Amino acid sequence: MSSGQQSVTALKKFTNFTNWFDELLLNAKIADNRYPVKGFIVYLENGAYIIEKIKRLLEEKLEKTGHKLMYFPLVATEELFSKEAEHIKGFSREVFKIEQREEKGAERILIVRPTSETIIYPMFKLWIRSHADLPLKIHQSVNVYRYETKATRPLYRVREIPWNEAHTAHESPSDAERQVKEAIEIYREVLEELGISFLLLKRPDFDKFAGAVYSIAFDAWNPDGRINQVGTVHNLGKNFSKAYDITFEKKDGSRGLVYQLCYGFGYSRVLAAIIAQHGDDRGLVLPPIVAPTQIVLIPILFKGQEKEVLEYSREIYAELKDIWRTTLDDREDITPGEKFYYWEMMGAPIRVEIGPREVLEGIVTLTRRDTLERLQCNRSEIVKEISQLMEKISQNLREKSKRMLYQMILDCRELEEAAKAVDNKNIVRAAWCGSMDCAQKIKEHVGGEIRGERYDVGEHPDRPCIACGQQAKTIIYIARAY
Amino acid sequence: MSSGQQSVTALKKFTNFTNWFDELLLNAKIADNRYPVKGFIVYLENGAYIIEKIKRLLEEKLEKTGHKLMYFPLVATEELFSKEAEHIKGFSREVFKIEQREEKGAERILIVRPTSETIIYPMFKLWIRSHADLPLKIHQSVNVYRYETKATRPLYRVREIPWNEAHTAHESPSDAERQVKEAIEIYREVLEELGISFLLLKRPDFDKFAGAVYSIAFDAWNPDGRINQVGTVHNLGKNFSKAYDITFEKKDGSRGLVYQLCYGFGYSRVLAAIIAQHGDDRGLVLPPIVAPTQIVLIPILFKGQEKEVLEYSREIYAELKDIWRTTLDDREDITPGEKFYYWEMMGAPIRVEIGPREVLEGIVTLTRRDTLERLQCNRSEIVKEISQLMEKISQNLREKSKRMLYQMILDCRELEEAAKAVDNKNIVRAAWCGSMDCAQKIKEHVGGEIRGERYDVGEHPDRPCIACGQQAKTIIYIARAY
Repeated sequence: MSSGQQSVTALKKFTNFTNWFDELLLNAKIADNRYPVKGFIVYLENGAYIIEKIKRLLEEKLEKTGHKLMYFPLVATEELFSKEAEHIKGFSREVFKIEQREEKGAERILIVRPTSETIIYPMFKLWIRSHADLPLKIHQSVNVYRYETKATRPLYRVREIPWNEAHTAHESPSDAERQVKEAIEIYREVLEELGISFLLLKRPDFDKFAGAVYSIAFDAWNPDGRINQVGTVHNLGKNFSKAYDITFEKKDGSRGLVYQLCYGFGYSRVLAAIIAQHGDDRGLVLPPIVAPTQIVLIPILFKGQEKEVLEYSREIYAELKDIWRTTLDDREDITPGEKFYYWEMMGAPIRVEIGPREVLEGIVTLTRRDTLERLQCNRSEIVKEISQLMEKISQNLREKSKRMLYQMILDCRELEEAAKAVDNKNIVRAAWCGSMDCAQKIKEHVGGEIRGERYDVGEHPDRPCIACGQQAKTIIYIARAY
Repeated sequence: MSSGQQSVTALKKFTNFTNWFDELLLNAKIADNRYPVKGFIVYLENGAYIIEKIKRLLEEKLEKTGHKLMYFPLVATEELFSKEAEHIKGFSREVFKIEQREEKGAERILIVRPTSETIIYPMFKLWIRSHADLPLKIHQSVNVYRYETKATRPLYRVREIPWNEAHTAHESPSDAERQVKEAIEIYREVLEELGISFLLLKRPDFDKFAGAVYSIAFDAWNPDGRINQVGTVHNLGKNFSKAYDITFEKKDGSRGLVYQLCYGFGYSRVLAAIIAQHGDDRGLVLPPIVAPTQIVLIPILFKGQEKEVLEYSREIYAELKDIWRTTLDDREDITPGEKFYYWEMMGAPIRVEIGPREVLEGIVTLTRRDTLERLQCNRSEIVKEISQLMEKISQNLREKSKRMLYQMILDCRELEEAAKAVDNKNIVRAAWCGSMDCAQKIKEHVGGEIRGERYDVGEHPDRPCIACGQQAKTIIYIARAY
């Protein structure tokens, strides 16, 4: 077994992320951003495919933990939408509205869901009677609509947002807390399987979900230094059950309000993270678990030996295709070199080259997309070898991404230093006293937002607040965000 | 092996369909119609589950035949929406509209898709360059929105409609014709697997899809005699490619317009057909292929023998659960009789009873939901026996439904006779001369609509037109419809 290695660079994605990303979206058939309504994009075959894969990974875990799939309407009435005061404050400016003329001539406004609390919780009120109905755990994968006034960016900030949202109701605050942990674990597992690394942050109070007691976010790193929030878990306490009057009979016969959670997982943002964290200058580098083509076979044809090579390729194809999503690229109008280039851009995890030498020696030549490392193995060992390679690729992507995340984090003690770091595409780690004044100062001077403190790791401040120099309460992460 | 049989009646669904159906929707956790916006319903856990199963059955077949999954936006601009004259005439009155205020203060109206031709075809124009790009076959499973002014009915006539829509483009009329056949075959196979019977009808010209050359429809029977259109296939010819300027370079170097098809499969209507065609007075009767619970195990406990029965039940559960979706109903707060009642309503295809006698004799007692027939088999043969039963149940449902369809069809030669037949929940088979005058007369006198002529079977008129008595051109089917 011999091995060689070519260099893998990801220069362009770090120096000119936007161009690199936009070009790749179209070339690798992920998405088409030319649809003539701002913030609405078309998901092309590979984008739609990968999103479906992510959806199934997530939904399987949700269902295994007792979440029931249900589907709720797209629209709320203005009355339903307005019940929770904080919630409407947070969302009312960014909703799409439909004017509905009813038969009787009356007009009413329908709100297109920016998220579905106001649509789902009136139903919870009908369904929940007693403690025997709890916990209630439901989920749906749908699009939500937000009238983004900031510049839109395909996959990152769109007006039509494909996501999964889960909503749960519980008897007690401790049940709700346990559910926070379960939700985090589900999202963490999916992101781990996709090799996406992130900071798990508790958002500062001023940035929590409108109507929540507190919010936990999964902040994935991006090559341009801007955080990509891929998922959030919100403990709603009794805020919504008060507003929507969702009560239950307790075991002791008295009535109480339920405790609620909602959590969301953004499919287009997770897709963006897969592209942005793993890709390189040659194109996509897809984790095997979601790749539309996991293995591409490329026959190298020389005059007079076409038949043997094609036959051998087809035999190997037949052997692999029931185990992995395999493509035999036997197009005749392009060269093997062009095929290499094409499938590198498409991010196929493993390339199998088969030429006269491979036939003669009874071997195959394999190339990993992630490292471009080439190796040969005996034909009889191809299934075993590829199984191991797939595992190695997944693991390498996961580890590489994690290393990059920690490389991007920069400890700062001064605002100016932090501003430079953010400009330099870093995520700033700093101490904060917790005051709104200092939060404001940080935002103004640093040009990034306080994303929050780590939820999974207790970090105690070993220095004064970066803004006022007084006693700090917490260690926070500061970054630009999408 | 012994066998017994209880009577199965479906009286209520034929005598009072609406009540029977509405009650069942909520009781069997299919859908909740209490959401406070007209025509928008909530799909509960079993409804959502069955729809997902139907979706996967269909999408697998679409993908196997080369249709690519893509996702297109919810909204069109008014300009895009207005390009095809017939199309806008057909749909403009029933669209929901969103008013969009852009940054510059300009307002524009967005049309919420009632179907996606006007959203997808501008993209086809960008993607299609030459014959090498054809055929182009895409599909998506999404909701479409139609502002129904008639009374809404859950699953049948709603304003939010879950469906799959496919759109294809071809080089030639003969390629398009071949695609019509492929589309019909795909839908036919799915309906066959679900045991749903239907008439495959070519709609009369005045009732074809707005913008189509002709339309083929899958009209499923319903217990109240009203036809339930579950799928349609439309040959669009060059009507839309003209309007959206979708051209390609032919093999000979000249340019031409593409030939197009669109076809749609209504998930909520197919779900309605499953409930309505197979259900009986006890509740749902689900085809095994979509049943959330395919087998329910019910232990029958007698004092002093609980342990053995539960142990035996758990062993059998362990044996079945990896092969079928199996539920062990070991609830302690309700009786076996109540469980029987509950699972009959939920439509679980096979019930397995296990009591002391079963333990003692090493057998199980199986009950088919479709016929309520009971039989016993040796424990060692349970997997084999259930496999056969599942097959028999599917086949019985399919055959029973087909028999009912042909029972409902009544040959009529006079308008009065036809009117009585429609009133009596029949589908009328009659001869028609093809004139609009007679179509109008039929509608007025019979109280049903001309649904069209059979597409799969050539039927030649053996009698004069039912309305004018002149020479008939075709045999048509007349029925009320949802």
